[in-house]
Amino acid sequence: MKNKNKTVWSARFSNATSKNFEKIGASIDIDKRLFEEDILGSVIHVQMLAKQKIIDRKRGNRIVKGLKKIRNEIRKNKFYFNKKYEDIHLNIEKRLFEIIGDDAGYLHIARSRNDQVITDFKLWIKKSSNEIIKKLNIVIKSFLKKSEENVHTIMPGFTHLKNAQPISFAHYLLAYVEMFKRDKKRFSNNIEYINLCPLGVGALAGTSYKIDRNFTSKKLGFKNPTSNSIDTVSDRDFALDFLSSASICAMHITRLAEEIIIWNSDIFKLIKIDDKMLTGSSIMPQKKNPDPAELIRGRAGKNFGALFAMLTTMKGLPLSYYKDMQEDKALVFNSYDTLLESLTIVDELIKNIKPLKERMLFLSREGHTTATDFADYLVQNNNFSFREAYKVSAKLVNYAEKNKKKLDELSFNEVRKMNNKLNNNVMKVFNVKNSVNSKTSYGGTSIKNIKKMISKLKKEFKK
Amino acid sequence: MKNKNKTVWSARFSNATSKNFEKIGASIDIDKRLFEEDILGSVIHVQMLAKQKIIDRKRGNRIVKGLKKIRNEIRKNKFYFNKKYEDIHLNIEKRLFEIIGDDAGYLHIARSRNDQVITDFKLWIKKSSNEIIKKLNIVIKSFLKKSEENVHTIMPGFTHLKNAQPISFAHYLLAYVEMFKRDKKRFSNNIEYINLCPLGVGALAGTSYKIDRNFTSKKLGFKNPTSNSIDTVSDRDFALDFLSSASICAMHITRLAEEIIIWNSDIFKLIKIDDKMLTGSSIMPQKKNPDPAELIRGRAGKNFGALFAMLTTMKGLPLSYYKDMQEDKALVFNSYDTLLESLTIVDELIKNIKPLKERMLFLSREGHTTATDFADYLVQNNNFSFREAYKVSAKLVNYAEKNKKKLDELSFNEVRKMNNKLNNNVMKVFNVKNSVNSKTSYGGTSIKNIKKMISKLKKEFKK
Amino acid sequence: MKNKNKTVWSARFSNATSKNFEKIGASIDIDKRLFEEDILGSVIHVQMLAKQKIIDRKRGNRIVKGLKKIRNEIRKNKFYFNKKYEDIHLNIEKRLFEIIGDDAGYLHIARSRNDQVITDFKLWIKKSSNEIIKKLNIVIKSFLKKSEENVHTIMPGFTHLKNAQPISFAHYLLAYVEMFKRDKKRFSNNIEYINLCPLGVGALAGTSYKIDRNFTSKKLGFKNPTSNSIDTVSDRDFALDFLSSASICAMHITRLAEEIIIWNSDIFKLIKIDDKMLTGSSIMPQKKNPDPAELIRGRAGKNFGALFAMLTTMKGLPLSYYKDMQEDKALVFNSYDTLLESLTIVDELIKNIKPLKERMLFLSREGHTTATDFADYLVQNNNFSFREAYKVSAKLVNYAEKNKKKLDELSFNEVRKMNNKLNNNVMKVFNVKNSVNSKTSYGGTSIKNIKKMISKLKKEFKK
Amino acid sequence: MKNKNKTVWSARFSNATSKNFEKIGASIDIDKRLFEEDILGSVIHVQMLAKQKIIDRKRGNRIVKGLKKIRNEIRKNKFYFNKKYEDIHLNIEKRLFEIIGDDAGYLHIARSRNDQVITDFKLWIKKSSNEIIKKLNIVIKSFLKKSEENVHTIMPGFTHLKNAQPISFAHYLLAYVEMFKRDKKRFSNNIEYINLCPLGVGALAGTSYKIDRNFTSKKLGFKNPTSNSIDTVSDRDFALDFLSSASICAMHITRLAEEIIIWNSDIFKLIKIDDKMLTGSSIMPQKKNPDPAELIRGRAGKNFGALFAMLTTMKGLPLSYYKDMQEDKALVFNSYDTLLESLTIVDELIKNIKPLKERMLFLSREGHTTATDFADYLVQNNNFSFREAYKVSAKLVNYAEKNKKKLDELSFNEVRKMNNKLNNNVMKVFNVKNSVNSKTSYGGTSIKNIKKMISKLKKEFKK
Repeated sequence: MKNKNKTVWSARFSNATSKNFEKIGASIDIDKRLFEEDILGSVIHVQMLAKQKIIDRKRGNRIVKGLKKIRNEIRKNKFYFNKKYEDIHLNIEKRLFEIIGDDAGYLHIARSRNDQVITDFKLWIKKSSNEIIKKLNIVIKSFLKKSEENVHTIMPGFTHLKNAQPISFAHYLLAYVEMFKRDKKRFSNNIEYINLCPLGVGALAGTSYKIDRNFTSKKLGFKNPTSNSIDTVSDRDFALDFLSSASICAMHITRLAEEIIIWNSDIFKLIKIDDKMLTGSSIMPQKKNPDPAELIRGRAGKNFGALFAMLTTMKGLPLSYYKDMQEDKALVFNSYDTLLESLTIVDELIKNIKPLKERMLFLSREGHTTATDFADYLVQNNNFSFREAYKVSAKLVNYAEKNKKKLDELSFNEVRKMNNKLNNNVMKVFNVKNSVNSKTSYGGTSIKNIKKMISKLKKEFKK
Repeated sequence: MKNKNKTVWSARFSNATSKNFEKIGASIDIDKRLFEEDILGSVIHVQMLAKQKIIDRKRGNRIVKGLKKIRNEIRKNKFYFNKKYEDIHLNIEKRLFEIIGDDAGYLHIARSRNDQVITDFKLWIKKSSNEIIKKLNIVIKSFLKKSEENVHTIMPGFTHLKNAQPISFAHYLLAYVEMFKRDKKRFSNNIEYINLCPLGVGALAGTSYKIDRNFTSKKLGFKNPTSNSIDTVSDRDFALDFLSSASICAMHITRLAEEIIIWNSDIFKLIKIDDKMLTGSSIMPQKKNPDPAELIRGRAGKNFGALFAMLTTMKGLPLSYYKDMQEDKALVFNSYDTLLESLTIVDELIKNIKPLKERMLFLSREGHTTATDFADYLVQNNNFSFREAYKVSAKLVNYAEKNKKKLDELSFNEVRKMNNKLNNNVMKVFNVKNSVNSKTSYGGTSIKNIKKMISKLKKEFKK
Repeated sequence: MKNKNKTVWSARFSNATSKNFEKIGASIDIDKRLFEEDILGSVIHVQMLAKQKIIDRKRGNRIVKGLKKIRNEIRKNKFYFNKKYEDIHLNIEKRLFEIIGDDAGYLHIARSRNDQVITDFKLWIKKSSNEIIKKLNIVIKSFLKKSEENVHTIMPGFTHLKNAQPISFAHYLLAYVEMFKRDKKRFSNNIEYINLCPLGVGALAGTSYKIDRNFTSKKLGFKNPTSNSIDTVSDRDFALDFLSSASICAMHITRLAEEIIIWNSDIFKLIKIDDKMLTGSSIMPQKKNPDPAELIRGRAGKNFGALFAMLTTMKGLPLSYYKDMQEDKALVFNSYDTLLESLTIVDELIKNIKPLKERMLFLSREGHTTATDFADYLVQNNNFSFREAYKVSAKLVNYAEKNKKKLDELSFNEVRKMNNKLNNNVMKVFNVKNSVNSKTSYGGTSIKNIKKMISKLKKEFKK
Repeated sequence: MKNKNKTVWSARFSNATSKNFEKIGASIDIDKRLFEEDILGSVIHVQMLAKQKIIDRKRGNRIVKGLKKIRNEIRKNKFYFNKKYEDIHLNIEKRLFEIIGDDAGYLHIARSRNDQVITDFKLWIKKSSNEIIKKLNIVIKSFLKKSEENVHTIMPGFTHLKNAQPISFAHYLLAYVEMFKRDKKRFSNNIEYINLCPLGVGALAGTSYKIDRNFTSKKLGFKNPTSNSIDTVSDRDFALDFLSSASICAMHITRLAEEIIIWNSDIFKLIKIDDKMLTGSSIMPQKKNPDPAELIRGRAGKNFGALFAMLTTMKGLPLSYYKDMQEDKALVFNSYDTLLESLTIVDELIKNIKPLKERMLFLSREGHTTATDFADYLVQNNNFSFREAYKVSAKLVNYAEKNKKKLDELSFNEVRKMNNKLNNNVMKVFNVKNSVNSKTSYGGTSIKNIKKMISKLKKEFKK
């Protein structure tokens, strides 16, 4: 092998790596994103080696100094990444040799790339899960603010996209707060799972050096070291957990986006989106399209796809490390970027949406949305069974439909035809505001409930 | 509509449901599996209605009695399920009318199928997650038992399916214990998420009856009632959590299955599987195939497929309830059955596998598996940097390969040629048992470590 | 092994199969659906063996007679399927022994279950693809009929769910005809791919008997025998082709379903669905929900899921046959049933939908849908560049919006303010019918185009 | 809107696009890859406009000249892509204004980005499918060459990874040729599907200009223009067809990769891979790992993921154009790059693999691989039924196993114990070469068959 820039493992090889594979197999374009984690991991590893007297303290200091210099170079875009050295780990090691000479050869004592890369990746996912959580907090606060402004905004609640019952717009918004709270909990739990430090398990079997895994684990912010060296280098559950949580969160976003797109149609007109969050057409001069909402709806595909890609990659892999797993980082980075961007758009969207209150109120009266209130009235006041009451109310709806009236446009005489024991008091159930306010059961849409809920949530998300 | 067997909602309809849709849209074949949960939910709901004086206590008792009679009928296979009534909820309601007459009409007060079905489904998933957890406990115990028997069984550890370092077979088995422990934690956490009771949110808006959601929630074994009625009827996160956890667990199983299949090949011959877990060929008389292992490897596809089906179904659904979501149950039932069966097979497989110890030991010496130990020796005893030591060891491997010797077949003279400062003490590093025992770092494969770990895990899984 | 009902391969086994695996691993509940194909395949195989003098003709006749008797038993539900014998092939073979005695032992000459099952499965997929094609023809004809009735029905065309340009409802419907035509072509092409007969490749290596694969291939309706025995028993591409085509078709259906659901909302009200294809609510008396449309939208998840399950199962399988592949049939059957049912619902939906023509026309005038026509007018008559014309038209839209007018409600004076060279002729471009009719480019929405297209398609789908 | 660099559609907007959305929503980083297709499409469009006298010929020439200048700039990396202008189409249009002034405004006559982008994308997919086909041809030829060299190389054929029957290594390789031939056919058929030109359907309704779609269609290399303008802008089937074909091809690659990895293990040792296609370990000096094979196995996940992402994105989209669809290009580009790279690796791998012939032959005798030949002998020479013969052969295998002999190590006396009518002639069936050569049925592994097949395939792939 004539090649001058030898790889660390060249001593066993009589032929240089295929140029094609060098290009395709190198992960440096992707995993250079881990440089902060990689250098931090190496620094802590070296400090432990010195503390344990496995290497000389002075040598350790030289290595740490060299690593910090490299970190600075990368941060300042002054580092040249070379595909020849495959990945971030070997690129840094090679550069370390250039800076401090043969002392660099002591860095890789009691360590393999197998444990090194998982340590880096776990650190990155922890950091990034926290970024998602921070962004979810921001999004939730925007929803709370919008809710607070719209406690009294009445709109039609939908099932099957048919008008079902009148609700408060705030109540609708709070439904998304519940979803994003669950998303947040998912990412938080993931961090808890991930909290075991891989560093020190070596290639797959552990090591004979007297290393202190509790030290490295603590210093790197993990709770404990992992318990089985083979499992540690084979495990990518933490990536799957991230990708699964991202997919579920992205799914929530598609639902919101769908809603915004429908509500923004020229026909629904339930909301007005600020021009900032609309785009035009190249051909139709009148158009103002909710592109941002569509984009985040479509992009959920990427999150789902990344999850499935990772499951596919892991399927049927025997233990322990296989190059197949290298794909994990591109998938997680892609899913993370996509989700963070989508959440950014969600936040801007919700801030730039104005409910068209009159239209909302008007439409909440369409579709006989208080028919259930009438049935409930019959149960509560006339001792009907619900099934009887349901039939009477259905009859009233049929009558109203035939006469092209909304329920609150009917006269008492018309209503009384359904049952002659009714008294005038019944007429209040057809009013949509009364309907909303009557839903006082816990979790229901009554204004009082909503106010309480907002105030409770605001406390929860104050910080 | 001439049809005699009217649906509950027939009063508004002038045409009977299409026969095709009645057949295709009915979910009764699937959701009858929820009958226990459905009846329990109804019983508790009625008790609450009576307690709150929303219905008369005597009437409540009659309803409860009727429901229990129906439960008995279903348990004894004496219940006739009718597609006409779509689902388990309406089938039971219809039968209740037959048994107790018009009092049945009071059951559906302050309740919608929307909250009813989620309550049933959440109860079922809780129960079934616990079944999975129980099965995981059994599987883990079988692995622990097999580990205990094989602490001293040395085998080659693999990376890239190439012989890497000698390890204990017990250590390998314990890697799977770690995976199944994570699976167990996932299902446990899911139960924690799911622990909010949907009952009482109505169709989507809550209800005007003075219901007591804390009562129903407690009686049904939930922690609290859900907080937002719209979210409650729209939410299927709990199904996705289940499907995601099942997929990850199934992925672990594929890895084990793959391993067993490779180890069982006529060429590896690392294990012997009992005839109970093998099948023959219809044409090749000599064959004994590891069909069970292959089956559980292939079936992971079903678990992954169910997860992606559910993500697809939820994608872009606006709030709140849509018939699309009906598919959730078939998917979860299918994934549950598949996983539980696969875990059953895993358990039987592990019980019926015998490591071929001599072969394992023999192969652990192949592939120069102690080359790293030699490098580490040079670092620890001759003050080499790891990179220098690595090169020297690589040279030794080249020499051994050329001379067709295993490392432990080399003479001290041959080894000393690599570095003349070596003393005879070095020769012990080439012994695979020494290699295994030297890996004393936490999580490493040394016998002492493994014994400690098994004893710790046995305590954890005693109950 | 005490068991009396021995499996065909029991001679090599000292232990009976695990009861658990017997239950889980048996595929008979699924693959009994292949009985017609299996018996046909066996009959042709035996006829070939006799023709080639590999077995005695009389013996061959006895076997054929026995097989036909079994076919009759199964057709008449008089056959007892036994999980003990794993699958349809061994169940039939066992029964054949009961009926004709030891002659049954000659059936499996020069054949393995590996080639037998693929032959059955390919025959089934061919038949079933043709069923899908037939159903697609029916659906297309229903769309054509509905199109023909609605050539003159003007509606708003949407991009981004915003009103874009007026179109004919027929044109919208014909867009789905194009999709279903592509689906049809996909399934037809699949049949072409699948047209190679596996029978006779044996377990994986071919056979030493002088069989005539061309004979069996022709008699079974295939074009040719397959060319490589190893590939033949390893290949499941034909199942993936089916599942992929089914997923794309299901995706088309989700789009139609979404459209129907939106159009059927109380707010769009573009269509009226017959009560046959609507269902009610258990709690809200007024509700009429488009459940069938929602169901087929949600169920696409199953089709996608089956495709990904199969891809997962095949991933990383070395050649040749593995039990993993047994899952193929359940996945394809499930996807087929789901798709066929969904297409049945599509057909009924389209037949039971009535466009609300006045509402459609009214809404087609909303959203300034003729702004592009105005810009095109400026280009065609006033020599504007399109970008200039676009700006002028945008200005007009701004003006109209501010003054709350539709474009066809503007006066010539108002329009002329945008450009003083305009003459009164311009006013015709704001009429939505004119707009529709002006789109005479091939594939455009002009009435003339549509009529031609319908007439062409009707000829294509006459038979 | 103060912004100087106005978008084309700014006239209707009072607020500049959100900076966040500008950044996230812009597709220019992705779709600039379409620049060749975009400029070609524009050039042909303008030529048609001039031919139809819709624009002045001189103006047309100026536009074409400007476009060609831009093409040169991009080819030479001298073009500045601006996210502000969202995508490749508007970036080019903006630059055209800079170069030729207001004449650029005539380019977008009778065209929308909706039809423009699909035209570009279809052209790109056609080109790229042809690239895949070319690469498949190269790969197939490499397999043929390797087959030709290994006609007489005997190896064990596997089912269930257990030794099944002896086969020729060439026969194994030819199985992959069959797979890649099917892949090729799939991509070829896709090109046939895709062969309808979208250009000229406008935003969704067609256009009122007298355009000549047949002209543009022909000039761009399509067969015909598309037939329905709404379908045309809504359709992404062609992307799904590509992604599905890529996934199936990637699946084939995972199978080959798996095989190579297993065969390359220190335990199988069936092949030797050249150092070019191996990599080392950072810690274990002896290691030579088949990283390239692992990489292409793992990466199939990306291909599957892209397919699922696209299906997700399209699910439930109403007609016609939605921004959701913008994601299509990133997915297809990613899947294409991944597949092309994987095929490159496949080609290099197959060229750099050497079968270890002695080891292969040795192992082909393990596992009683000629037991079926013995059974067939009994049928053919002693008039046994296959089921009887199977049992006798099974007994022989049991005997050999007990006595630790291979079948070809048994004496005639030992064999005759199974059946006393046997004559010495039977002994030849235990020879693995005889076994291979006896498989003369069409598609079987006999040397004669293989030679014929190779010669036939070489003719097919000569060009």
